[in-house]
Amino acid sequence: MKPNRKEEIILKAAQLFKEKGYNAVSMRDLAQDLGIKAASLYNHIHSKQEILEGIIMQVARDFTLHIHEVSPKPISAIQKLEEIIQMHIDLTIQKTDFLACMNNDWMHLEEENRANYIDMRADYETKFREILQEGIAAKELKESDPEIMLFSILSTLRTFYLWYAKNKNINPNVLKKDLTQTLLQGIIV
Amino acid sequence: MKPNRKEEIILKAAQLFKEKGYNAVSMRDLAQDLGIKAASLYNHIHSKQEILEGIIMQVARDFTLHIHEVSPKPISAIQKLEEIIQMHIDLTIQKTDFLACMNNDWMHLEEENRANYIDMRADYETKFREILQEGIAAKELKESDPEIMLFSILSTLRTFYLWYAKNKNINPNVLKKDLTQTLLQGIIV
Repeated sequence: MKPNRKEEIILKAAQLFKEKGYNAVSMRDLAQDLGIKAASLYNHIHSKQEILEGIIMQVARDFTLHIHEVSPKPISAIQKLEEIIQMHIDLTIQKTDFLACMNNDWMHLEEENRANYIDMRADYETKFREILQEGIAAKELKESDPEIMLFSILSTLRTFYLWYAKNKNINPNVLKKDLTQTLLQGIIV
Repeated sequence: MKPNRKEEIILKAAQLFKEKGYNAVSMRDLAQDLGIKAASLYNHIHSKQEILEGIIMQVARDFTLHIHEVSPKPISAIQKLEEIIQMHIDLTIQKTDFLACMNNDWMHLEEENRANYIDMRADYETKFREILQEGIAAKELKESDPEIMLFSILSTLRTFYLWYAKNKNINPNVLKKDLTQTLLQGIIV
């Protein structure tokens, strides 16, 4: 099962990057942690940069594709926001270490990938902002500054992997219900 | 005006720490930026650590004192949360660089101060959690998981200095109204 071996390497790498930071982890450390020889590691992966790219660009693409899929749907802005928040929670639960790596180590991507990553991030914010503006125009959302709404929701979603790493025993359904409610409807009765 | 000279040094240091990171700034850099001799700088300040302590412990104490002052007031939990959020916004507006420094460089505090800082941070979270629990018990706040509420609000407040640094032209009254509303009442009409 060759493809799974590569996946396994990337999973272990994400975990090591999270624990020690990208710069402090060598291909030798990674091979040692996987219990294989460095030479054997190079049969699957050419460089640390290839791994970093594999982790970050994959997650960034997941987010980008999802928001582009949700955005044109014939549903309300609120429903779109709910789907986006749920996706963020799902991806964080499934790929906690990948999100940590994306957040901590994106600046270590090489030039072209870094530029692509920054573009995807800006594009995600643009799409998110459009949905908020659409909801305000349709009077589904309050007449607040959409920049403040965008910052408030994204700051929580983007640091969520940190909180989740310390609270993994929480029921995922309670988590989704309560976090979505807190972000969209606030905490006041 | 001797006391103001020290304040001026600390303000400039906070700005440099934010731009370059604590480790990359030397006392010599700081003196140069202030247009004074390093020897003259040492008349006011003994070490970089003393400056870091001056910045971080001052802000941490401001937050701690405020939440301890608000917590026992004979007002609703919602009013307490409003006061705490407003204080956070005020402090971020007044001391953006200090908050950046606290967030980025607290781990560079020497042992005793670091332990004190971590204690104050935990104490702040405890007080905040108590107010949320009080509000849930009084049926002022929704019956959501208070840990999720706490994380959601604090993740936004704690990264707010980053957003504010890029949006300084915003009207502070609009900011306070809209951010407080977004955090407490959500974005749905």
